[in-house]
Amino acid sequence: MGPLLIGVDLGGTNVRMGIVTPGGVVLKKIKYGTHISEGREPLLKRLVSHLKDLIRKDLNSSHPWIGIGVAGSIDRERGIIVHSPNLPDLEGFGFRDFLSKKFSHPIVIENDANAFTLGEGWRGAARGAKHFCGITLGTGVGGGIVVEGKILHGKEGMAGEVGHMVIEPNGLACGCGGRGCLEVYASGKGIQRMALEAIKKGRGKVILKGGRSHFQKITSEDVFKAAQKGDTLAKGIFDKMGAYLGLGLVNLIHLFNPEKIVIGGNVSKAWDFFIEKTMETIQERSMKGPRDRTEIVQSRCGDEAGILGAAYAALIKARQGA
Amino acid sequence: MGPLLIGVDLGGTNVRMGIVTPGGVVLKKIKYGTHISEGREPLLKRLVSHLKDLIRKDLNSSHPWIGIGVAGSIDRERGIIVHSPNLPDLEGFGFRDFLSKKFSHPIVIENDANAFTLGEGWRGAARGAKHFCGITLGTGVGGGIVVEGKILHGKEGMAGEVGHMVIEPNGLACGCGGRGCLEVYASGKGIQRMALEAIKKGRGKVILKGGRSHFQKITSEDVFKAAQKGDTLAKGIFDKMGAYLGLGLVNLIHLFNPEKIVIGGNVSKAWDFFIEKTMETIQERSMKGPRDRTEIVQSRCGDEAGILGAAYAALIKARQGA
Repeated sequence: MGPLLIGVDLGGTNVRMGIVTPGGVVLKKIKYGTHISEGREPLLKRLVSHLKDLIRKDLNSSHPWIGIGVAGSIDRERGIIVHSPNLPDLEGFGFRDFLSKKFSHPIVIENDANAFTLGEGWRGAARGAKHFCGITLGTGVGGGIVVEGKILHGKEGMAGEVGHMVIEPNGLACGCGGRGCLEVYASGKGIQRMALEAIKKGRGKVILKGGRSHFQKITSEDVFKAAQKGDTLAKGIFDKMGAYLGLGLVNLIHLFNPEKIVIGGNVSKAWDFFIEKTMETIQERSMKGPRDRTEIVQSRCGDEAGILGAAYAALIKARQGA
Repeated sequence: MGPLLIGVDLGGTNVRMGIVTPGGVVLKKIKYGTHISEGREPLLKRLVSHLKDLIRKDLNSSHPWIGIGVAGSIDRERGIIVHSPNLPDLEGFGFRDFLSKKFSHPIVIENDANAFTLGEGWRGAARGAKHFCGITLGTGVGGGIVVEGKILHGKEGMAGEVGHMVIEPNGLACGCGGRGCLEVYASGKGIQRMALEAIKKGRGKVILKGGRSHFQKITSEDVFKAAQKGDTLAKGIFDKMGAYLGLGLVNLIHLFNPEKIVIGGNVSKAWDFFIEKTMETIQERSMKGPRDRTEIVQSRCGDEAGILGAAYAALIKARQGA
């Protein structure tokens, strides 16, 4: 058992939050746009206001623990968002200090992909596993690693940056400042870039038929739709993306020897189009033994994984009595 | 405190063993050739005989705990050596069952690179660190990961295979069955291969002057000697090796956010020739923050790291009362 919880999934596009029981049931959920273009102050103001509403109206001012999963690298010691390509206005911001001035509730901040991974371990595809990895394929590629039932944080809380493994030594520039990272090839952005490259070469007619007013507005969703229509180009893009994802998974298998790797995020909806190449790559390139015994599975918590995992991070802290 | 210990470092070329105090002092060391060509039985016979000698003569038949670091992937649950390119005769062998029939002493089996890492954490370059990685640059590339003071074993004990991260997607075949692994580019074998490739193209005169009767017998040591003489080709090989090693370290930094990465093994003697490119790669390609705060250091225990770490693995078990 434990206290009532609020889990928040603070992403670059949407904010999701929900009231969660200590048994892992989401009682009430809300969702609104992050509107990052408006800057840090409005973003924080909306966040605080929605949280206060939930606490006052729906929890009748009882005293929940709050967990927040943020799309960025968190320095856990200092409670600062160190690096966040999708929430740039929060970079360097002392998020924990800010929140502790607004709320008397205990607050835990976690990286969003770590929250996803915790959520899948608590209520989803990795229930019961002690050693597993979570990967979110969204605009970028996030990751979380669970070792003996606990999220691997490393020295400063920035471990698990699965999306920034180098996968292509002479690869393209990545938002992290590096080059050739997994995120460059296996994310929504990566799929979009591969489609744009093809369209500029005069290909990609089926993808373009998706109806965008301008080809620059093509998204990874459009590529997915074209693949569903049987478009060879779109399918080739997912093949390529799947093979690169496979290289990333080979590294995770060799480094962590996990029981499971759970894959979620918006792009994972295209599962049937990329997973074959992913599995082929794992079979070809990883060591016998772990290669056949590591389960590669799709996430089960859907949009709730982030809320559940953020709430769970708070629950862990509550149980530690800290 | 704890019991007296014997640490064994069972490698493809040499076997080293020593009596170790619970405070981490090596009291007596012996070393002999592994002679793998003679097969499994003579290898095991010699191992048992040397261990019995140490126990009877030097420990006056007192009851030490024995830790053995083996160059191979260990299935810890079953006590089996699953995969060992350097000790192929031991692959699939039930090492723990064999030893427990020969000795009444408690015996712990560990991967040799994990033992190296534990040794450096106990008495060497990573003393006091809670989150660190160890890398051995020898014939192959081995690795160990310490998370919250404990070796990361994963589901079956096969985690930490740093040498088998994919670093070059279209790379050359690796002994593990994969392709383009770090080991292909950053090991003694890799340096040797790069030198042979150059010699076949009519280059490498300084390397050849090392005095080998046939160019096929060139070793990574010869390349090191040529680099020390200022040979451009040899230095170029270490530059390339250093840059690839850097890519591997970028991945470790992003996945583990360690305090330190300790690098040892025979090839690490060429430190001054490869470390510049390694550090350059880390600066160019890893995320700010961890990039500057992760210490990359040379091992300090030398040849004793494996003995110390194997002994330490036994000591941990003894302290757990298991």
